[in-house]
Amino acid sequence: MRSLVLVGHGSHVNSRAARSVYRVAEELRQLGSFSEVIECFWKEEPSLRQALRVTGSTDVTVVPFFLSDGYFTDTVIPRELGLGHQGPVPPEGIARVLGGKTVRYLPPYGSFPGLSDVLVACAREALPEANAEDVALVLLGHPSARRGGHLERHAQVIREARQFAEVQVLYLEDHLAHAPWLDVIQAEQVVVVPFFSDHALSEAAPPLSVSLGVQDGQAGGKSVTVAPPVGTHPGLARMLAGHALNATQDGFSGDADRVHLAAWTELMQLARRGLRLGEAVITPQGTLFDLRNALDEGRPSAELTTFVTVEGLRDTIRVDDSGAHRPVRTFRNLPRHWRAVFSEDDLPAAIHALYPATVEEAYSCGCHSLRSTPWPTTARRQTGIYARVQKAAPAQVEEVARRVCSRCLRTRLWASQPLPHTFLTGVPGAVPCAEACTYLIAAVREHLAERPAEENSADG
Amino acid sequence: MRSLVLVGHGSHVNSRAARSVYRVAEELRQLGSFSEVIECFWKEEPSLRQALRVTGSTDVTVVPFFLSDGYFTDTVIPRELGLGHQGPVPPEGIARVLGGKTVRYLPPYGSFPGLSDVLVACAREALPEANAEDVALVLLGHPSARRGGHLERHAQVIREARQFAEVQVLYLEDHLAHAPWLDVIQAEQVVVVPFFSDHALSEAAPPLSVSLGVQDGQAGGKSVTVAPPVGTHPGLARMLAGHALNATQDGFSGDADRVHLAAWTELMQLARRGLRLGEAVITPQGTLFDLRNALDEGRPSAELTTFVTVEGLRDTIRVDDSGAHRPVRTFRNLPRHWRAVFSEDDLPAAIHALYPATVEEAYSCGCHSLRSTPWPTTARRQTGIYARVQKAAPAQVEEVARRVCSRCLRTRLWASQPLPHTFLTGVPGAVPCAEACTYLIAAVREHLAERPAEENSADG
Repeated sequence: MRSLVLVGHGSHVNSRAARSVYRVAEELRQLGSFSEVIECFWKEEPSLRQALRVTGSTDVTVVPFFLSDGYFTDTVIPRELGLGHQGPVPPEGIARVLGGKTVRYLPPYGSFPGLSDVLVACAREALPEANAEDVALVLLGHPSARRGGHLERHAQVIREARQFAEVQVLYLEDHLAHAPWLDVIQAEQVVVVPFFSDHALSEAAPPLSVSLGVQDGQAGGKSVTVAPPVGTHPGLARMLAGHALNATQDGFSGDADRVHLAAWTELMQLARRGLRLGEAVITPQGTLFDLRNALDEGRPSAELTTFVTVEGLRDTIRVDDSGAHRPVRTFRNLPRHWRAVFSEDDLPAAIHALYPATVEEAYSCGCHSLRSTPWPTTARRQTGIYARVQKAAPAQVEEVARRVCSRCLRTRLWASQPLPHTFLTGVPGAVPCAEACTYLIAAVREHLAERPAEENSADG
Repeated sequence: MRSLVLVGHGSHVNSRAARSVYRVAEELRQLGSFSEVIECFWKEEPSLRQALRVTGSTDVTVVPFFLSDGYFTDTVIPRELGLGHQGPVPPEGIARVLGGKTVRYLPPYGSFPGLSDVLVACAREALPEANAEDVALVLLGHPSARRGGHLERHAQVIREARQFAEVQVLYLEDHLAHAPWLDVIQAEQVVVVPFFSDHALSEAAPPLSVSLGVQDGQAGGKSVTVAPPVGTHPGLARMLAGHALNATQDGFSGDADRVHLAAWTELMQLARRGLRLGEAVITPQGTLFDLRNALDEGRPSAELTTFVTVEGLRDTIRVDDSGAHRPVRTFRNLPRHWRAVFSEDDLPAAIHALYPATVEEAYSCGCHSLRSTPWPTTARRQTGIYARVQKAAPAQVEEVARRVCSRCLRTRLWASQPLPHTFLTGVPGAVPCAEACTYLIAAVREHLAERPAEENSADG
């Protein structure tokens, strides 16, 4: 058994930020190279802190779905996973044994050598009729892609293969629109392959062709074609899976994680009898399970939108009834007016999408083995713009938590709130919270920005 | 059977605004002069629009818990009750037959002649040892108490009874603190009786003694005692009840409202089998009923705070888990970690406190007799600062409703949302909304203040 964890940044405000990770994870699942593929995020759920708890095998490969080295791949992911590593990650990755699991943390996928071929495929498919030897290939990266030099290395590899008339690297800066970037290009026909994971995340951002001064396929007297971003190429998942599998070719293959297995075995036993879980209710129907908001219990199916895929369920419950993003899935704003129907095989993935990590954490809580992290420990771990939360007085943290956490189902074990029962022992709304989530951390930071930390006061 | 409705202003933001109405309504209930005493509010629930629906008899006397005539008593209450009256209310009140009920709308209690005696009692009890003939009585009113002249009339009545050395009327203005108000007073001993319904609602407001320049019981060389506000006097409820009963001495006494009775009979039948209602669950336990947040179902009672009075329940569910005010009881933020236990006799009042008007409205909805009011009709009814909501384009109303109403259990019948089922027919979260509430109206107004109405656009 092998688990692959695909890591994205996620967002506390924008539900579109995670979509490229979800898309590629789905493609990876379809390939079937790994026993399971789990998405994890910094600013969504399941969080990086929960990654090892929600994976079902003892062999875990972690791939950051990023194109470049940077603060996130060098600092945040290793820190949140507890790898005891900081700084650039070598090509072979970093291996650790954590909590009985062998964890391999790989560098960002933008560094994977196989990405050169995907870039070439992007270019060729954008100009299927053209003779590549007459075409200039421009690899367009975000300015941050300079870090680590991966884009330049891919360009050099493609250049040396002499498939294109020329290969240039371009970074997306403000002054591209008047097309000075074309001055260095000899060929009359140009294909631009964006070294991006997804199309522009922000609807406010102009399309890349506009940023490049391309109009009707022309710029500076040349024919210019902008290909879809490399991260959206259908061949990407196979390359990622191959690389990640290759990194694990040390003869080791994991077993089922026993705690994980026990937690889900218990959950399924309860589900077969019908179970309320947070704001949701699971009702067995023959060999299938009906999952819906408990407020919709008893509502005829014809009045609800029905989903039969985990992805359909997930996209529904990622926003509330007003269409706003739900960065914390246990916030008490689960949307209504839907139901989802799953087989016994798919139900665990559906519950994982609905309330990530809650089954594993509730089970561990019941076994008295869920270790909670007190706020000061969480605060000390923070770096970058979040480092200042260490200065928050306890009363300030409590003030913010009172406001933020009162919207959440979870009970703050990390603030010594007792939780003798969970939904596994019959209390639907009882869900443990082992440590402050990034949403709360960000809220504490904002609170301090509005009101300076009371540094000399222990209970300000 | 006779119903008394005590009307307060209420607040969308401050849970303390309603407390004086609750306090006096409880005292009125204890007196037992009316079959029931119902609190209604403009900006809380049950709303004035629901007043006739939530009263159980066909004989309804409405008393505004206000001291002075004004916009609220002259315009808002009659308009929201649908009395077809605008302007000052005569001492004997206004009688109408509305929806099969005889409704008597009385002027504000500040106009009731019996209040003179309560003012005197306040003064005497504040200075139990003093000889009243040596004492100057100062009746202190809010500047708005000039309207209608009730305070001046009470002063004249007390003056003519010659119980006090002198009787003065004073209005709470900015320049009182340096005690010029004492210049006109001859007596060495002064008692101030505030013509207010409650102690200062705002914790930020200074105590009246500070506003009057009184320190250690002294001001301007005189001994000055500030009595509790007249609205807090224990004799007030008896005076109110007597006056309200007197207004109904026309030989008529109402019957049970048949729809109201049928709705509650059905509810109680369901409750005896156990019922989920919105976010709450009712569980029969022997001859008693356990009421709690459905998220706390199964939680041992020892882990919850138990209430056995309707008032205890009401004060708990008027704020959310962060302590914030819940102006709309059907917002999906019912607090957790409590349970309430009631006899069959008290359960209806408890459910009324939890989700006012929902039982009556769900029952009528099921009988296809719940008339909904489309937004344009609601908007046209508005006056004062809310009149401008008439200018909101349909898309603007929908935008605000999408944000505000998505937090609410209710289904907007007034916006043509279908509701084939309710919690009375087995769908816990299904609660009808017959018309836009004042919370939404206020939100539309705020929205327009931020973004001007698109007057020429029908779907801006």
